[in-house]
Amino acid sequence: MGSVIGVIGGGQLARMMIPPAVALGLELRVLAENPGSSASLAATAVGDYRDAATVLAFAADVDVVTFDHEHVPQDVLAQLVAAGIPVRPGPEALAVAQDKLVMRQRLGALGVPMPDWAEVRDRAQLAEFLAAHGGAAVVKTPRGGYDGKGVRVVRAAEEADDWLAAGPVLAEELVDFRRELAQLVARRPSGEFAAWPLAETVQVGGVCAEVVAPAPDAGALIGEARAMAASIAEGLGVTGVLAVELFETADGRLLVNELAMRPHNSGHWTIDGSVTSQFEQHLRAVLDLPLGDPSPLAPVSVMVNVLGGPAGAQLPDRYPAAFAAHPDVKFHSYAKDSRPGRKVGHVTATGADPDAVRRRARAAAGFFES
Amino acid sequence: MGSVIGVIGGGQLARMMIPPAVALGLELRVLAENPGSSASLAATAVGDYRDAATVLAFAADVDVVTFDHEHVPQDVLAQLVAAGIPVRPGPEALAVAQDKLVMRQRLGALGVPMPDWAEVRDRAQLAEFLAAHGGAAVVKTPRGGYDGKGVRVVRAAEEADDWLAAGPVLAEELVDFRRELAQLVARRPSGEFAAWPLAETVQVGGVCAEVVAPAPDAGALIGEARAMAASIAEGLGVTGVLAVELFETADGRLLVNELAMRPHNSGHWTIDGSVTSQFEQHLRAVLDLPLGDPSPLAPVSVMVNVLGGPAGAQLPDRYPAAFAAHPDVKFHSYAKDSRPGRKVGHVTATGADPDAVRRRARAAAGFFES
Repeated sequence: MGSVIGVIGGGQLARMMIPPAVALGLELRVLAENPGSSASLAATAVGDYRDAATVLAFAADVDVVTFDHEHVPQDVLAQLVAAGIPVRPGPEALAVAQDKLVMRQRLGALGVPMPDWAEVRDRAQLAEFLAAHGGAAVVKTPRGGYDGKGVRVVRAAEEADDWLAAGPVLAEELVDFRRELAQLVARRPSGEFAAWPLAETVQVGGVCAEVVAPAPDAGALIGEARAMAASIAEGLGVTGVLAVELFETADGRLLVNELAMRPHNSGHWTIDGSVTSQFEQHLRAVLDLPLGDPSPLAPVSVMVNVLGGPAGAQLPDRYPAAFAAHPDVKFHSYAKDSRPGRKVGHVTATGADPDAVRRRARAAAGFFES
Repeated sequence: MGSVIGVIGGGQLARMMIPPAVALGLELRVLAENPGSSASLAATAVGDYRDAATVLAFAADVDVVTFDHEHVPQDVLAQLVAAGIPVRPGPEALAVAQDKLVMRQRLGALGVPMPDWAEVRDRAQLAEFLAAHGGAAVVKTPRGGYDGKGVRVVRAAEEADDWLAAGPVLAEELVDFRRELAQLVARRPSGEFAAWPLAETVQVGGVCAEVVAPAPDAGALIGEARAMAASIAEGLGVTGVLAVELFETADGRLLVNELAMRPHNSGHWTIDGSVTSQFEQHLRAVLDLPLGDPSPLAPVSVMVNVLGGPAGAQLPDRYPAAFAAHPDVKFHSYAKDSRPGRKVGHVTATGADPDAVRRRARAAAGFFES
């Protein structure tokens, strides 16, 4: 069995693949963008993931290529495939995660419930969309957006002029949502599928701040979200971890907001809160190994991101106080320099009472606020 | 706060420190004995731990030195201390773990219950010990023994001649024990102490085969074992993880068999079965950080060693079948070449019913038998 996994991108997602790779005795090799990357411990190459020669050289003797992010260009992916190197998720699936217009088209073809949307090429088309949707829209650049970047709420057609100058954009109805949810699943090439419990996510300024799993009071949504994610994973041929970000509307429907085809912030709680973490599951899935049990370890897990972190300091500087106050909270540092709003770590608390667990997780993360 | 930990020795114990170091954003540097060590991912140096210059160079810019094994010579430890490098556990404590005669003397001074023992210098003294203990004794070389090596049951005085030719040996009464137990604890330099649940260990041929935690039906032994380990940790000034291996005698007393001042096979279950693993705890303790919660995550955890492993194969070759049969068992490979009886990995199962969990763990480990 092949057991050498090449990961393109050296961010915290690649970093968090290292512990399960060490545990399972799998060899993880990372192509990082720079020498001081979050995943530098496993970096065997440093180079530009947009350069086909760099990527092909990195991938020459791995058993499978997977990703820390979705930004590897399609022509580079095509060359990997042409060279006979398994790429998981594959180029066709990744195309859907790389371009939000493609995503809406493909999800529409699968009959997945979504916000109303349109491809908008100019100010007039945006004005038309605004008029049809109560005067407000969420406008997104098709490519390159993340953590709130490339997303803007507009109420006048000229507010997207800068983006429209560069090409078409995606306009979506501004959904009146009760809350946001995330359904994390995994699928291996042979088709086996596993779903973690539906989670509730709290975004602040477009950035994930907090995740509660399982989502409280989800009732029938649990089955709906799972079925929706299964049909997306199957329909798009996703291999590895897939995160489906959802709106729960004021009238109780689920609408798909975003997709990510890799371990995702909404699943960081699984490291400490699930029998099989999303990072272990991703490694299993891309190697086409049988999937692990996604059952939760505790009645409730709450993950809180550390955004920015202590100014001019690393997370460990605050460990004496944080550890003393919270011996049962799990702390995760991405070994990144702090910048305001940058994800530099997270904490996870588990327990029985959702409110108490949430308070503990927030308090523990609070030790790292500047 | 210092956060660079130097580990002397590149075995599986150093390997299993990598995941918590990655999670916490601590830098782990390993001095390995050879390039293909189990902990090679974190190896920043390869060299002989008995050579002071090698060890001093390795340790020059770490914040603390700790160990994968107890074999670093005292003169090398003394030079580290003289160079101002924190060594945890310290040389005085390690001396007790390095020499079984010293251990018996020191534990005796602490009033810890032990098997009857004597320092034996020749055949006549051994004959005397045998006569006083029903004609049988366990003879141990003071140094260098592990996993059943350097330990022999003798019933005639001449059976230890070979060892006696090299110097004094330790003779111990052959304890009529009901079972073996292990009390795993951690202590940091500031004195804080934490104890995991008392575990039952099953040895086969002197090698740990299986660990059940918490030990079933332990009753009053739980408090006794904890108090005993606390007095040993405090009395010897141990820092880091301490494993106290115990006999439960047929008449219900606890006797100390062996000590280990590092993460220990009897604590591997804590990786998947405890809020804080012994490897994370060891890192916290040697950095003098507040200790983590040692509470179990499940009613019972069972760890089974993979001894030898698949002939001529690596553990991952058996993953397709093993994972499919046991999606909820956690598999650990040490990335070592298989040799009969060699510890090359372990599995841990958790659950509610001790017998069922034990059966699952044994069945999962069985996939790796040759």
